[in-house]
Amino acid sequence: MEKVENHKEFIELSYREAIKAYNKGEVPVGAVIVRDGKVIGKGYNCRLEKNNALYHAEIVAIENACKNTGSWRLDGSTIYVTLEPCLMCVGAILQARINKVVFTTIDEKGGCLVSKLHFDRLNLPFSLSYEYIPDFRTKLLLKTFFYELRKKTTLQQISEEQ
Amino acid sequence: MEKVENHKEFIELSYREAIKAYNKGEVPVGAVIVRDGKVIGKGYNCRLEKNNALYHAEIVAIENACKNTGSWRLDGSTIYVTLEPCLMCVGAILQARINKVVFTTIDEKGGCLVSKLHFDRLNLPFSLSYEYIPDFRTKLLLKTFFYELRKKTTLQQISEEQ
Repeated sequence: MEKVENHKEFIELSYREAIKAYNKGEVPVGAVIVRDGKVIGKGYNCRLEKNNALYHAEIVAIENACKNTGSWRLDGSTIYVTLEPCLMCVGAILQARINKVVFTTIDEKGGCLVSKLHFDRLNLPFSLSYEYIPDFRTKLLLKTFFYELRKKTTLQQISEEQ
Repeated sequence: MEKVENHKEFIELSYREAIKAYNKGEVPVGAVIVRDGKVIGKGYNCRLEKNNALYHAEIVAIENACKNTGSWRLDGSTIYVTLEPCLMCVGAILQARINKVVFTTIDEKGGCLVSKLHFDRLNLPFSLSYEYIPDFRTKLLLKTFFYELRKKTTLQQISEEQ
């Protein structure tokens, strides 16, 4: 398990991944996977770019970590992600045998660790620890993205109506 | 939604995918995705071959369908899979906007439609219909695979002890 004093560094790296998504017009979520103090995988949401329903940040980071380590098992690792994972990503984290999730923004609508579903109450045959360490920048980045998206859509509608 | 009279054909195709996994020494699960009577994606479990924790049959089939259709949205499609999907795969099916799951074997330990978790009770903001149509061959294939795996492991242990 990663040391608490190192969380800040890895949260920063996951935020940088989210920025990459933002710069490409994707929902800005980023993730890094860390084992023994080293980054073994990273990724950002690239669903539109890759035209693939599955390419959430966590999935991309897991694929990257499997490739980098040459193994499908990521035991002993922690994933840092800028948004609470959805059902698919919680399932993928379990499948990859990742031990811990650190996330920095709550997703009330789709989060499946503490929000929409509470992981502990699912009573699944897997153990997974998780920690919510708020980072206002990751939340702000998402809010900015959706604000701009709404604005763009509204402007487009107005332009089409004229 | 696919017509009931066509289910048999697509179950047969998903079984053939499972056979491919079996022939490669992988847990034998196969899937096909169908829209308007046409197969738009298919795949089999290849977690070991690809060294990737995520490559369950459903994930491979979804990736294949996204590639074939050029879109990350698979609205109006049905996925036929030989084993009840796990948490990750149920999540992936929702993310891909697939409308229906037809599965032919119950997975009491890890199935997240009716077994370990009951999808309807999760109260998620997605609708998904599903149907269990038993096909003893898909169950038998899995049983055979695990029987052979245990036998192989036992023989290996005996050989190591001697």
